[in-house]
Amino acid sequence: MMHAEHPADRLLSRIETLAAPVCVGLDPVVDRLPDCLRDGSEPIAAILDFSLGVLEAVAGHTPCVKLQSACYERYGPAGIQVLFECITKAEQLDLEVILDFKRGDIGISAQHYAEAAYRDTSTQPSWVTASPYLGADGFDPFVRPDRGAFVLVRTSNPSGDAIQEMKLEGGGTVAEAVGAYVAKAGEASVGARGYSAIGAVVGATKPEAAARLREIMPDQLFLVPGFGAQGGGADDVKPCFKSDGTGALVTASRSVIYAFDSRDDDWQGKISEAAKKLADQVGVIAGLR
Amino acid sequence: MMHAEHPADRLLSRIETLAAPVCVGLDPVVDRLPDCLRDGSEPIAAILDFSLGVLEAVAGHTPCVKLQSACYERYGPAGIQVLFECITKAEQLDLEVILDFKRGDIGISAQHYAEAAYRDTSTQPSWVTASPYLGADGFDPFVRPDRGAFVLVRTSNPSGDAIQEMKLEGGGTVAEAVGAYVAKAGEASVGARGYSAIGAVVGATKPEAAARLREIMPDQLFLVPGFGAQGGGADDVKPCFKSDGTGALVTASRSVIYAFDSRDDDWQGKISEAAKKLADQVGVIAGLR
Repeated sequence: MMHAEHPADRLLSRIETLAAPVCVGLDPVVDRLPDCLRDGSEPIAAILDFSLGVLEAVAGHTPCVKLQSACYERYGPAGIQVLFECITKAEQLDLEVILDFKRGDIGISAQHYAEAAYRDTSTQPSWVTASPYLGADGFDPFVRPDRGAFVLVRTSNPSGDAIQEMKLEGGGTVAEAVGAYVAKAGEASVGARGYSAIGAVVGATKPEAAARLREIMPDQLFLVPGFGAQGGGADDVKPCFKSDGTGALVTASRSVIYAFDSRDDDWQGKISEAAKKLADQVGVIAGLR
Repeated sequence: MMHAEHPADRLLSRIETLAAPVCVGLDPVVDRLPDCLRDGSEPIAAILDFSLGVLEAVAGHTPCVKLQSACYERYGPAGIQVLFECITKAEQLDLEVILDFKRGDIGISAQHYAEAAYRDTSTQPSWVTASPYLGADGFDPFVRPDRGAFVLVRTSNPSGDAIQEMKLEGGGTVAEAVGAYVAKAGEASVGARGYSAIGAVVGATKPEAAARLREIMPDQLFLVPGFGAQGGGADDVKPCFKSDGTGALVTASRSVIYAFDSRDDDWQGKISEAAKKLADQVGVIAGLR
């Protein structure tokens, strides 16, 4: 897809059209697929069929999908092939794509990873996720006039606190300082709508921390995992939004893509309903519905 | 290759056999390959030929090679195929393999990445590199009885200081606290020789910082990039070794794998000489020669 528009402007526009500041995460594992797809298929073939089916089911309800690269990479070259087939399909369905591959390497290697993500003009994700530990060298190469990066700032996994919540001399936590660093790095790529092409991943499980990070990063779109299956609720994600309802994209994976009984032939219908429900819930939380 | 031995014990044994605490990094880019390989070949075919040639040239001089995943991933599925062909070849040549892919994701996704690295028993790297930002959830899945992970603690890239050198309340830097966290996490997987299956990446450009990290992480093998082309010298890497000459693996990439003139048909000979020189230099620094 050729679209020269700023990635944040484009994403905001799609969110508004659907009044749905949400993202559906695809992190498919074979054991959880519908029986009808698993019977006799190679695992990666079943993953492809399922992923394409999910994309069809959620299109029109969500502006955006996030593909967990690890779930595809585990199948080697065939998995990478399937991953990019899914990106192509998502773009055909007018879904914005976040390639969730959390790369973080020194500058030249980060450039190679950017090339890995963007090499084929027909299969380019709009955004990738990236790690902050190496500084801007590790994420700047993913930012282009029409592409952006969500940098990990605050994650919702159990051991995330160990590093991210360490207290700094002079006050604040490592996550807050990383947030300030990301905010500064993002100043050079702010779009017409006031948001940068460098966004932030901010987990949904710590509302006070999210409110503080919202202040520290006024120009960052927040990609907010942890809603639903990982335990985050309305109170946890609300501080990620600004008062005008912009600023965050709440992502849910398992609560949407596994919203069926494994023997249910209408698994796509159930996923569609779950995506619609997610959009309703979060649209209300953000004040867009 | 089936080898149930602890990864640090195995690596130390190979280092001793060659009196060479070094690693040759393969991060091939097409523009820098010998002319004779570039003429008329597809880029990824030239990268494969070059990589296999480097492995042959350095075997016997270095106990270990590090493959930069990004350089292969940029070619999509074909690149992944070539990456694992190189790992197979390296193991046939009795070279320990570090897959430098710096993954860092929450637990279940990290497990998928471990599966991506270890899925084929004939092509398993001995070690991978991983990011610390998500805590142990992000690197523990890569540790197995016979496999290990080097976790990024202190990197040598220009913007690495921004996060890693932040000062903490109560003293010390983020990198030092990450080092202490890695040391603690590694206690459960110490081998017979006293080193853990969780090692640390410690860049060669800050000798004082390296000395401090050596104290903080007594059980960690250090993977030390930045020697040679990136500017690190003998004084910079010496503090990474203990007085008995163990504890570190100095890695050089460009200064070895590009040690030829592009028109030189004996590029393998030049690489071989450069690997031998690296082993000599670092073997002397460590006191093993």
